[in-house]
Amino acid sequence: MTWDFSTDPEFQAKLDWIKTFVEEEVEPLDVLFPGCEYLPLDDERRAIVDPLKQRVRDQGLWAAHLGPELGGQGFGAVKLTLINEILGRTDWGPIVFGTQAPDTGNAEILARFGTDAQRERYLAPLLAGEVFSCFSMTEPQGGADPGVFTTRAVRDGDDWIITGRKYWSSNAAVASFFIVVAVTDPDVPIHRGASTFLVPAETEGLVIEASHHLFGAHRHEPGHSLVRYESVRVGADALLGVEGGGFEVAQSRLAGGRLHHAMRSIGVAQKAVDMMAERALSRETKGSALADKQLVQAAIADSYTELMPFRLAVLHAAWLIDEYGEHAARTDIAALKVLTPKVLQSIALRAIQIHGGLGTTEQLPLVDMLMTGLALGLADGPTDVHKMNLARRLLKDYEPDDPEWPTQFLGRRLDAARAKYADQVASVPSVPDGPPIRS
Amino acid sequence: MTWDFSTDPEFQAKLDWIKTFVEEEVEPLDVLFPGCEYLPLDDERRAIVDPLKQRVRDQGLWAAHLGPELGGQGFGAVKLTLINEILGRTDWGPIVFGTQAPDTGNAEILARFGTDAQRERYLAPLLAGEVFSCFSMTEPQGGADPGVFTTRAVRDGDDWIITGRKYWSSNAAVASFFIVVAVTDPDVPIHRGASTFLVPAETEGLVIEASHHLFGAHRHEPGHSLVRYESVRVGADALLGVEGGGFEVAQSRLAGGRLHHAMRSIGVAQKAVDMMAERALSRETKGSALADKQLVQAAIADSYTELMPFRLAVLHAAWLIDEYGEHAARTDIAALKVLTPKVLQSIALRAIQIHGGLGTTEQLPLVDMLMTGLALGLADGPTDVHKMNLARRLLKDYEPDDPEWPTQFLGRRLDAARAKYADQVASVPSVPDGPPIRS
Amino acid sequence: MTWDFSTDPEFQAKLDWIKTFVEEEVEPLDVLFPGCEYLPLDDERRAIVDPLKQRVRDQGLWAAHLGPELGGQGFGAVKLTLINEILGRTDWGPIVFGTQAPDTGNAEILARFGTDAQRERYLAPLLAGEVFSCFSMTEPQGGADPGVFTTRAVRDGDDWIITGRKYWSSNAAVASFFIVVAVTDPDVPIHRGASTFLVPAETEGLVIEASHHLFGAHRHEPGHSLVRYESVRVGADALLGVEGGGFEVAQSRLAGGRLHHAMRSIGVAQKAVDMMAERALSRETKGSALADKQLVQAAIADSYTELMPFRLAVLHAAWLIDEYGEHAARTDIAALKVLTPKVLQSIALRAIQIHGGLGTTEQLPLVDMLMTGLALGLADGPTDVHKMNLARRLLKDYEPDDPEWPTQFLGRRLDAARAKYADQVASVPSVPDGPPIRS
Amino acid sequence: MTWDFSTDPEFQAKLDWIKTFVEEEVEPLDVLFPGCEYLPLDDERRAIVDPLKQRVRDQGLWAAHLGPELGGQGFGAVKLTLINEILGRTDWGPIVFGTQAPDTGNAEILARFGTDAQRERYLAPLLAGEVFSCFSMTEPQGGADPGVFTTRAVRDGDDWIITGRKYWSSNAAVASFFIVVAVTDPDVPIHRGASTFLVPAETEGLVIEASHHLFGAHRHEPGHSLVRYESVRVGADALLGVEGGGFEVAQSRLAGGRLHHAMRSIGVAQKAVDMMAERALSRETKGSALADKQLVQAAIADSYTELMPFRLAVLHAAWLIDEYGEHAARTDIAALKVLTPKVLQSIALRAIQIHGGLGTTEQLPLVDMLMTGLALGLADGPTDVHKMNLARRLLKDYEPDDPEWPTQFLGRRLDAARAKYADQVASVPSVPDGPPIRS
Repeated sequence: MTWDFSTDPEFQAKLDWIKTFVEEEVEPLDVLFPGCEYLPLDDERRAIVDPLKQRVRDQGLWAAHLGPELGGQGFGAVKLTLINEILGRTDWGPIVFGTQAPDTGNAEILARFGTDAQRERYLAPLLAGEVFSCFSMTEPQGGADPGVFTTRAVRDGDDWIITGRKYWSSNAAVASFFIVVAVTDPDVPIHRGASTFLVPAETEGLVIEASHHLFGAHRHEPGHSLVRYESVRVGADALLGVEGGGFEVAQSRLAGGRLHHAMRSIGVAQKAVDMMAERALSRETKGSALADKQLVQAAIADSYTELMPFRLAVLHAAWLIDEYGEHAARTDIAALKVLTPKVLQSIALRAIQIHGGLGTTEQLPLVDMLMTGLALGLADGPTDVHKMNLARRLLKDYEPDDPEWPTQFLGRRLDAARAKYADQVASVPSVPDGPPIRS
Repeated sequence: MTWDFSTDPEFQAKLDWIKTFVEEEVEPLDVLFPGCEYLPLDDERRAIVDPLKQRVRDQGLWAAHLGPELGGQGFGAVKLTLINEILGRTDWGPIVFGTQAPDTGNAEILARFGTDAQRERYLAPLLAGEVFSCFSMTEPQGGADPGVFTTRAVRDGDDWIITGRKYWSSNAAVASFFIVVAVTDPDVPIHRGASTFLVPAETEGLVIEASHHLFGAHRHEPGHSLVRYESVRVGADALLGVEGGGFEVAQSRLAGGRLHHAMRSIGVAQKAVDMMAERALSRETKGSALADKQLVQAAIADSYTELMPFRLAVLHAAWLIDEYGEHAARTDIAALKVLTPKVLQSIALRAIQIHGGLGTTEQLPLVDMLMTGLALGLADGPTDVHKMNLARRLLKDYEPDDPEWPTQFLGRRLDAARAKYADQVASVPSVPDGPPIRS
Repeated sequence: MTWDFSTDPEFQAKLDWIKTFVEEEVEPLDVLFPGCEYLPLDDERRAIVDPLKQRVRDQGLWAAHLGPELGGQGFGAVKLTLINEILGRTDWGPIVFGTQAPDTGNAEILARFGTDAQRERYLAPLLAGEVFSCFSMTEPQGGADPGVFTTRAVRDGDDWIITGRKYWSSNAAVASFFIVVAVTDPDVPIHRGASTFLVPAETEGLVIEASHHLFGAHRHEPGHSLVRYESVRVGADALLGVEGGGFEVAQSRLAGGRLHHAMRSIGVAQKAVDMMAERALSRETKGSALADKQLVQAAIADSYTELMPFRLAVLHAAWLIDEYGEHAARTDIAALKVLTPKVLQSIALRAIQIHGGLGTTEQLPLVDMLMTGLALGLADGPTDVHKMNLARRLLKDYEPDDPEWPTQFLGRRLDAARAKYADQVASVPSVPDGPPIRS
Repeated sequence: MTWDFSTDPEFQAKLDWIKTFVEEEVEPLDVLFPGCEYLPLDDERRAIVDPLKQRVRDQGLWAAHLGPELGGQGFGAVKLTLINEILGRTDWGPIVFGTQAPDTGNAEILARFGTDAQRERYLAPLLAGEVFSCFSMTEPQGGADPGVFTTRAVRDGDDWIITGRKYWSSNAAVASFFIVVAVTDPDVPIHRGASTFLVPAETEGLVIEASHHLFGAHRHEPGHSLVRYESVRVGADALLGVEGGGFEVAQSRLAGGRLHHAMRSIGVAQKAVDMMAERALSRETKGSALADKQLVQAAIADSYTELMPFRLAVLHAAWLIDEYGEHAARTDIAALKVLTPKVLQSIALRAIQIHGGLGTTEQLPLVDMLMTGLALGLADGPTDVHKMNLARRLLKDYEPDDPEWPTQFLGRRLDAARAKYADQVASVPSVPDGPPIRS
């Protein structure tokens, strides 16, 4: 056991296959069926996408994020990072490889907390990529603060009646089922008073009021919905996990997904760097290639100096998860939540600039990358909250000391040195008299 | 062989010993004998420092950067990083452990290129930390551009006569010998026309005109000198390496040292983060600890999100050196030359701010850390030059393409998709008609 | 004549009217007819827009950028700034007030260089906002470098034959006429070898190959076109200005417009700040308003400290134009070209972040503001080019000095002080001996 | 009354005189007597400095910050800004012109609140620059929060007994008298429970425990002291202003001074830009001047785009003070407290970088400028506190609105537009059908 940054050759061969396959077969889907990743496959798309999924299965690469018990590969987080940084270069990659958020996390919840009947009905088609799912937790009055959630679930006999509104419920418009977090005991803090429910899409009272889209998204994308739960009645078995354990269920889902975004973002950012490099070499102005201009060189260099260490940090967090469990990686995951949108934004902004006016149009994927960066700065909670969280975790390892003069205060250090060396050194500090050495 | 971010327990035990030893024994030297690291040991300092050096030797940790053939440990770059990040927290650490720049690099040159007589006279005491040395290459008219060097070495019989001026010759005022790069053939490009010479300090004509200091340095520090070589005569054996091979000699020296700075900077920056954390927990204002203020939390969080990936990047570059040689790490070393001063500066600036007025004084080591950051942004060439160098290295992996419409241009991608799927898809892009899904 | 930052009350009354009118009457157009500003008015839009234009005329505010000789108000640049910062808060404001780019600049060219017939046909309807125009200069192979332009205009008898391709020709799809810059003498530098032509939209051979849009624009916007000129024949009177004077014509147009963008950007950025402030006061999380969170306070404070000085800088440049002519303001205009996109981007990014997920959607105008910032960083040449231009202008006021030791080098200053005070001061520097004062 | 950015010719002539006088006569003092500005004049310094002061008096420019009633010129803040940006280029300028902090503010307090006897004893020599003074308010346990102050003043008969410790008491080591803020009523909030006292330096019990210095300061500078008040007895007339009105007294002093720092910082930053420009033109590397390198051009351009608007912002705040009083300028003063250190730091950092290694040494004044920037980010309270203060001031002009959907939410705007134009427009939004215009 010691420092090693290499990938074993056998797995590298798989990565090589993935890279070629994604470039040749998956990237064309991004322009062939743009914004259609989360639409149920029509015949035309199915004819093309299903064989590609089969090739992934044939390679033993389907649903790489899952353990073998769920039909996945049990690769672990490090290998998943190496895969996801390739898939991140495309929109359709995660679909073709069966690793698309938010279905990844929802499947984990279903597998762990669902009844046999629920698993039978939803898990298999979800894992097969045949249906989509919606995680419905955030509320319009305050996404980052569960303390303000008001959506209630109240017992009515054996049933539950859910009432309230949820926002930013992604893919609600195409989801077969919803995982809904609702308050079941308003008299205790939300972390013990919320529960999680599985609600089939067709349940009466579940109303999609509106769907908002990331700026520039295609109108046919399902987007992020405002969902009203109007006395939605579900049975006792709709409860996932125990009553009051809603946040435990939700957290288990968010944890993994947070790193997935970071993993894919490596690939997004690398693609932007690749585009900068191509442009720099291909384009001339004022008699020489952009590649010869210092400011372009600086843009490329700065992007690499952000991206390269970021990639290592993601792999390190993944390794912590693999070795010691997700809990051991929480500090670094918090750091990556801060870092991911920052890296994406700054690299995307540079790439746009280097591509000139063209970079600002829909003709290149660069503003889209910037939008991904913006969205990731808010999707699992705003960056500000992650910074607070990260700082609190870091500060746990320290103790308060004197409020006026810190341990590194010269006076304190001098006193200690005097005490330690009183017999050996006449004066502290002990420095030469006279003019500077030889000058 | 696969990804592994752990340290083997045996070496970790050594690191633990180093950490304790440095905290307890070495840190006091920084205030006991401030700025005296590069002064020849007087009796008082020797009485304290020599026993510490011996304890390092007893642990088998002396000169950890050197191979066994030179009396070092052959640890390699990864282990050296782990050691240096501890030593970097102190001024005296490198001296006590026999790894202080620039003597580290100069010893490598001497060992590789020196005659037996030179090695006998200088190498042993240099490795023992008994004498100091000076690397004299930069000239006052342009440090980052060897093309403007004018210091000449001309043959005179078997001897060489060196004439010219050098600047930023660190430790010249205390050095026993100088390694001087001079032009021996002005008619060819400098990279083939320069040679490297060993000049004993006492040689006639070697004049220290002035010594400049980093702002805030102690006046008794040897500093960085402007050296005049006034017809300095040295024998044929003063030539290190072959005639015209001066830059090869110099480069071999700079390569390692560049990463050494980065290694130690991890420790410097970590110390600043530690100080921020202590202050945040210890100090109250407006009724709560600084640790509870969002802007302080953000300062700590931002520092960690810079430092943690930086540390991994240094370890990765070190690993590349260990596995594939220094050449394989050149791109990452260039990136680290850009990153090191940036990380140090931004963390030091935050730490100063959190410490209030006290942070701007000589009573805390924080401005000193900032100065280290500033110096490292210039010491081995200015950041701008490293960015250019880094960009050029990165661009070697790319090819130019169409100057108007890049490979990611939507039109090109659509044409390719149409060609590939002409038989299967009627229109490209192929997207749903009608209003958005369910809304 | 002396420093005064106030607006005279009479003009302030006009501004107050504009502010109310824009808020009440113009802002609704932005959502009523989104992205339709540059579409010829259909009956529905005309019924609403024409009366609004008339109200502006009635107030004596129509075409505020123009001199009285063109039916404008002769307000000058300072007053135009104060108007434009209000209009900039809306999409339709410039249309309703007759000051929309690029027609503003094109009208100036037409007025100055057009024949009577051309002015009769195009200028009146253009000034009346009844037709649109296109400025067609940039080429696909390099927007910021006229040196690579290849579009040719060749004499054929009295006629000219124009052949080539132009890119980023905004509003080409709706323009009644095009102002085209083409090479007429390839044997001299482009700045003396290009000429400017007026080409009616219906001229044979003028082909719009494609129209690209800013990411997220409405599909019905005319966008920015790639235009092919396929042996386009125009008469001798199509030449605007003198043969070879094409750049003089173009420059006269760009100069004013560059400041117009900056003026309107004040309003865009102020709107984003207003939105941040409203959100901060309206939204609670974790038990208190966003307005009470330090990081939100910092976002608002940082935005003000960027925007307030930026606004003064625009007004200062406008004042220079009014007092001393556009030439006197060139340095500051270059600085504003650098600053405008920077201010817009950073304020928009903060505003998006404070609005959470909602801020990233098409439901708020914030990403649109960011896109404006991105576009302005490229529209009149990329920021890099403006920085180079600005630096060159600034450096004209300085002289080179000693390459090694600058005038502020301590040694030089000491020598001078010694020379000046040799009789009065024994030693230079002359500082007290002994320990620090009283400590 | 209208926008005007010019200086009247008569005052410009004074500025021209100041500029020449400062360059020729004052700048040499900075190297002749470095760090001696606040030392009582010895014979040598007096022989040179007194005649210079007299020349300033002869020009009617002495103590330009003061009203005529105190022997000043009543110039007002705008003119003071124009003077101070010249004086800011030097260390000795404020001394020679009688405007050195903190004596400026202390003189205002003394003039407004002192008894006749106090004014007679201290004010005249203070205004004449013959004695120095110390403002002693901050305490070691928390500079930015008066709420934690514990230094007490207790009545004893007619006398007051002051007991406590103060930190960051600048120039304590040379001061003739101290203005001390002490708690007189611990039972009410500090803003009503503190009082201000004048304490002669020689008073028994006033002990300077230590003097700390900005990193890199000269050891003979008086620095910033930790002062112990050990049952210091002063008479009834030592109370300045009313009992409990201590903060009113202190605030009146801080207000003006805050803008003075900003004024002088314009000059400091402009000097750094001048140095960058000279270096860029004087120094060559790789075959061309630094002035021709894009990254150097960008450094100069970025510095100007920061400095130019900053200067206007200072002048604008000064104008507000002159026209409407200091109260009207408080928002902008807060903004300038945030901006001043930021501008200084970023320009100084760029200037250091452009000067290479030399820039990091004591041989150039650049790190000193950086230190000034650091100190100004903390001197009148840390930047974080100014941001909070600024945000609170800005937010006063806004009202909260709907917590979920802001006024700019598309849905709300659409509803309003529909209501306003229900009769005229069939559908809202009303946009064209069909494919994009002409493409």
